[in-house]
Amino acid sequence: MKEGREANLLETVSMAVPNIRKNRPLIHHITNYVTANDCANIVLAAGGSPVMADDPEEVEEMVSLAGCLVINIGTLDTRTVEAMLRAGARARERGAPIVLDPVGAGATGMRTRTAERIIRELSPEVIRGNLSEIRTLAGSAERTLGVDSTADASQAEEVAGRLSRELGCIVAVTGRIDVVAGGGRLSLIRNGDEMLSRITGGGCMCSSLVGTFCAVMPDRFAGAAAGILVMGVAGEIARERLLPGEGTGSYRFRIIDAVSRMSAETILARGRVS
Amino acid sequence: MKEGREANLLETVSMAVPNIRKNRPLIHHITNYVTANDCANIVLAAGGSPVMADDPEEVEEMVSLAGCLVINIGTLDTRTVEAMLRAGARARERGAPIVLDPVGAGATGMRTRTAERIIRELSPEVIRGNLSEIRTLAGSAERTLGVDSTADASQAEEVAGRLSRELGCIVAVTGRIDVVAGGGRLSLIRNGDEMLSRITGGGCMCSSLVGTFCAVMPDRFAGAAAGILVMGVAGEIARERLLPGEGTGSYRFRIIDAVSRMSAETILARGRVS
Amino acid sequence: MKEGREANLLETVSMAVPNIRKNRPLIHHITNYVTANDCANIVLAAGGSPVMADDPEEVEEMVSLAGCLVINIGTLDTRTVEAMLRAGARARERGAPIVLDPVGAGATGMRTRTAERIIRELSPEVIRGNLSEIRTLAGSAERTLGVDSTADASQAEEVAGRLSRELGCIVAVTGRIDVVAGGGRLSLIRNGDEMLSRITGGGCMCSSLVGTFCAVMPDRFAGAAAGILVMGVAGEIARERLLPGEGTGSYRFRIIDAVSRMSAETILARGRVS
Repeated sequence: MKEGREANLLETVSMAVPNIRKNRPLIHHITNYVTANDCANIVLAAGGSPVMADDPEEVEEMVSLAGCLVINIGTLDTRTVEAMLRAGARARERGAPIVLDPVGAGATGMRTRTAERIIRELSPEVIRGNLSEIRTLAGSAERTLGVDSTADASQAEEVAGRLSRELGCIVAVTGRIDVVAGGGRLSLIRNGDEMLSRITGGGCMCSSLVGTFCAVMPDRFAGAAAGILVMGVAGEIARERLLPGEGTGSYRFRIIDAVSRMSAETILARGRVS
Repeated sequence: MKEGREANLLETVSMAVPNIRKNRPLIHHITNYVTANDCANIVLAAGGSPVMADDPEEVEEMVSLAGCLVINIGTLDTRTVEAMLRAGARARERGAPIVLDPVGAGATGMRTRTAERIIRELSPEVIRGNLSEIRTLAGSAERTLGVDSTADASQAEEVAGRLSRELGCIVAVTGRIDVVAGGGRLSLIRNGDEMLSRITGGGCMCSSLVGTFCAVMPDRFAGAAAGILVMGVAGEIARERLLPGEGTGSYRFRIIDAVSRMSAETILARGRVS
Repeated sequence: MKEGREANLLETVSMAVPNIRKNRPLIHHITNYVTANDCANIVLAAGGSPVMADDPEEVEEMVSLAGCLVINIGTLDTRTVEAMLRAGARARERGAPIVLDPVGAGATGMRTRTAERIIRELSPEVIRGNLSEIRTLAGSAERTLGVDSTADASQAEEVAGRLSRELGCIVAVTGRIDVVAGGGRLSLIRNGDEMLSRITGGGCMCSSLVGTFCAVMPDRFAGAAAGILVMGVAGEIARERLLPGEGTGSYRFRIIDAVSRMSAETILARGRVS
């Protein structure tokens, strides 16, 4: 038996799964072209309805139809940054949640400045990144090498807690152990598999799932935890289902398989949240 | 035994399959970055040769080599819209067919206006969309939510027939039952599977197949029907081949598998056209 | 027993495999949106760390972190061409190798001119293309139809040898038999499978592997041969592992599977280099 807060969070997350499939929230992405297909497919697998649109001329109208805006700076450029700011301002007016994935913050000044500007101007409800991205945004002096990194849980707890207090939003750091912090709450999620770091888009898909859950969960802390937990559980199931001789190519589609078959029961049985 | 017009259309479609594999027509796409990879792979699976090129400076030259131009406005921007218009004008001069996929028409003014402008300036031979996209272009007062929708066949018949008469081109509405209308002809296609609505790119890939068949079939009505029918049959085969525990991730690659193995015999045996 | 130069090259290539997994070199890509996901996944499968970044404002900083720059002109535009030139100039200053994939050179003037300009201004260490692309760059009068072509080995040897002498770099022509030429050396690689020509991204992924190996191998001739050989061996293994009824969709992920499980032993056992 899982008890107390942990049980409550798992319960809340598990109930959101059929809710997404019933309501099919539209998740507007302004995202990178490398993993856009993966993000669209994982949102559909979860039961949401993804749309990618990034021209400044149309994003305000598109986001007006959406249940959530996911901003991912993975292959940002001047035009899409303008679209992010415009769409975000409109989302704020409407009260639609914004999820920011600050891909590569710290790797280049442009990425760091863009992430900081989005935070300052749009106040996203949730920021999800790896440890070095979140450290960069929290003002820790560190330089990111690439877009993947293994997270040290205690550092992640400290930095997520600090940034979430400073910004008054939910901050999630994913890594070996995932950390969600915000509103005086802190959760550690121990699902996932090391193979997730050997495919592209693991972080991006996680952020898209966070956005999909936030579209139906007014409690954004629970929404962030839900997306991360479902990604982690799917990563475990995909690993278990690998056949002899299969590798990272098979692992990728088995993640989408697992999300498309995710049930409340699976989340209750497998979720490792504290 | 299938008889009459249905048998004729199936026969025509089935004969085009080896024809594509023999002639490997170049299919020039100006399309979105979300499903471009899926579109390229399905064209290759059918035996065609895809090329994606969208810079205004080069599209006229590229389309001069092509057997068909597929215009998909899924992630349009100012630059690519200019490329669509330039490439389309050159395709018209050469007599190469143009297939338009008006992704998200009705969702934003920019998409609706762009689709209308392409229709006005380029007179595409075939327009393929879902019901709400085609309703938007036919001037029906309705707002699209997202890019997926389930089609109501009788509405689809009415609106496809009306728009095809108005524009003098082939109009196809895909949904639970697919409708192809144009030149005084109307066909209903009853192939497909509901899982096609749970992956991204089902519509885009269908349009790319329509373009691939139109490149080798002077009868564009038959070309449109062929692409839609092959997509639907592949969607059925993919579903049948799913193993226990598999979901939408596996479904995606099994569609490409089915197209790459599609034979004239399979089309004759499975096609449900009336 | 394999002997002499062939054995030496295979030995060198095989030793690089664990070296990549240990050092995880960052491979900066400025590439097309059609196959960017495939390229990222194959670099990760080989053990490298891919990053795609193409805004002129950030590429110099990003490439400063990279072990190799891969420039692929598959869906070039004015903005990304500027990024290629800036990133390349910085890579040159730092001594990081540059790999050029001149996708579609010969198909349009813009592609031919861009490839020529990159060669002139950046002097890439390795150029990898299909026969018609390399013939175009070598000044042979031929027009490319699309981006796929079957290579004639003796023509490939002649043209690769000539262009490599003219430019003083490594030139690789991939086709039925792959040719690597440069620095007075010439190798033929007889791995691969015809199914590689029936998926998109075979050439792009090959160039990304070349870049990944060049990041850890100071001998760029061996680096080019390594990437091509690993791609070819993976293409063979993927074919052998296809189950009855599977097609090009399954073939694609089985290639990534094979690269993610590639070992020095497999390369020594299967490599067919002369």
